[in-house]
Amino acid sequence: MSTLASTQIHLASRPTGWPTPDNFATVDVELPELADGEIRVTNEFLSVDPYMRGRMNDAKSYAAPYALNEVMTGGAVGHVIESRAEGFAAGDPVLHQLGWRDIAQGPAGAFRNVDRIPGLPLSAYLSILGMTALTAYVGLLEIAGLKEGDTVFISGAAGAVGSAAGQIAKLKGAKRVIGSAGSAAKVELLTQKYGYDAAFNYKEAPVRQQLRQSAPEGIDVYFDNVGGDHLEAALDSFNPGGRGALCGAISAYNATEPASGPNNMSNMVTRGLNLRGFTVGNYTQHLPAFMADMSAWLSEGKIVFDETIVEGLGNSVEAFIELMRGANTGKMVVKL
Amino acid sequence: MSTLASTQIHLASRPTGWPTPDNFATVDVELPELADGEIRVTNEFLSVDPYMRGRMNDAKSYAAPYALNEVMTGGAVGHVIESRAEGFAAGDPVLHQLGWRDIAQGPAGAFRNVDRIPGLPLSAYLSILGMTALTAYVGLLEIAGLKEGDTVFISGAAGAVGSAAGQIAKLKGAKRVIGSAGSAAKVELLTQKYGYDAAFNYKEAPVRQQLRQSAPEGIDVYFDNVGGDHLEAALDSFNPGGRGALCGAISAYNATEPASGPNNMSNMVTRGLNLRGFTVGNYTQHLPAFMADMSAWLSEGKIVFDETIVEGLGNSVEAFIELMRGANTGKMVVKL
Repeated sequence: MSTLASTQIHLASRPTGWPTPDNFATVDVELPELADGEIRVTNEFLSVDPYMRGRMNDAKSYAAPYALNEVMTGGAVGHVIESRAEGFAAGDPVLHQLGWRDIAQGPAGAFRNVDRIPGLPLSAYLSILGMTALTAYVGLLEIAGLKEGDTVFISGAAGAVGSAAGQIAKLKGAKRVIGSAGSAAKVELLTQKYGYDAAFNYKEAPVRQQLRQSAPEGIDVYFDNVGGDHLEAALDSFNPGGRGALCGAISAYNATEPASGPNNMSNMVTRGLNLRGFTVGNYTQHLPAFMADMSAWLSEGKIVFDETIVEGLGNSVEAFIELMRGANTGKMVVKL
Repeated sequence: MSTLASTQIHLASRPTGWPTPDNFATVDVELPELADGEIRVTNEFLSVDPYMRGRMNDAKSYAAPYALNEVMTGGAVGHVIESRAEGFAAGDPVLHQLGWRDIAQGPAGAFRNVDRIPGLPLSAYLSILGMTALTAYVGLLEIAGLKEGDTVFISGAAGAVGSAAGQIAKLKGAKRVIGSAGSAAKVELLTQKYGYDAAFNYKEAPVRQQLRQSAPEGIDVYFDNVGGDHLEAALDSFNPGGRGALCGAISAYNATEPASGPNNMSNMVTRGLNLRGFTVGNYTQHLPAFMADMSAWLSEGKIVFDETIVEGLGNSVEAFIELMRGANTGKMVVKL
């Protein structure tokens, strides 16, 4: 084969506050012929994730900032269309981190073969079989030390991480799982589909008050995807020895001024609480245990997941902005 | 012997904000004769501690609130003057929790015999050999998981817990220990006497800025006695994987409104930080290891401690208020 035209989405400027389409550029490039050891992949699904907002800033963080005028990297799945590397053949499904582009190509080491599981879309490797659900798994089991009989509160519960976390918590022995989300429809999904014992709409009344009502005997574990008033509410409702896994704080990602922290940090001392932040990239050693558990749960029909699919590479930026607005249920992906 | 007149300090009303002498009452009581199994002790030193402020409120906390019109309980040391219990004889030095009174008596189980260590005042059992230094020991080793080579920041560093913590950190292998205190004299003590590598006066410039200057390569462990701007500064300077032991927040104890928390909690996620609150009462299983280490350090001259002594039971309230103001260096005690 030969050179090939390809389209990519670049970060063109760093957002201040909420990102806008102006911060991105659609760029057409000519891909070179494959070198020995390289493969070429046509992408089927791209991942848009809240953590990407942090990488758009030029700030010290766990992941390096995105470079200006380069591709928005991130998780993606597709099929090999040409291979000059051992172990990869045309048609193979693969996972990679090369991000928002229609065609990805490069050294085979940047790609991972995945097993196509009957009945599951390939996008499952971006959600329930991917980093998203691993985040839920690690946060609950490793970071928060979930124990049988715990009462668990999860914020952003209808999102990709939260919907997995609620089900994993129940499967691992939590007594009661409470979730918060931002619409009546999502709240209904939490209890009707994702196995939550109780759920509330955080837009309807103060989180602190609603959490107290939903967990009158207090909470033992908090899985934080939101920060802000949700973290404050958890600190208010924690039982002695409570443990929080801090996964993200979407409430603050687009703020232009630093937000005040919880006004009840003193509970940490008096109740002996533990808060631990984490990013899943430091815990990939748990991937084998996670894949074993999750594959079994999926095959036994014990876990469900949803995706919100936006069509077209050209709508990637819109998909990302809608994700930040909470328009998704379950994992937000872009389908090419 | 017979009945005996005794003087006690009671909590008369719950303070709003800063406590005042009006919140307390001096009460003369007639003590009954000893029953079988009881001992009578004349107190030599009483402990006044920051945690007592929390117990003056009628709020859920790790320790039950002080009852109104009852004695202010807390650590005290003295000598047995009469015993009707096995294992206690007149003249024995003992430690107990019966608090602010000149004479303590009751069932022998409420008292613990202590070894009088040559060269040390009995008050050492309220400070360097007592709960105070155990708090420093547990906070660093158990809660913050101090490792050799760590850079450690300690707030309230010239207080009873902080002055012990700085020395323990160095003895356990910290590379660099930084302390903050509220006067030039205390700051000098930190580096000249307590083994701190660097120290600053938090009243002179923003803590965040001074900590950055004192720890240009960041901190790995933070021992928090202060809360507020000190905790925020620590979150700003933490290296990835940093660990904080939250022991108290004296900056907020007398506030009448909840104080905003740190405005940089998001660093917990991006840097994988861990904050753990604790109260030493839940960690007394470490007392034997602590006593072994501390006795050795004291006998080898490897650790020093200071006391600020206020004379007279009648000045207990003033001693406590002065403690809250930071007037003490090392352990604040009342000598009877």
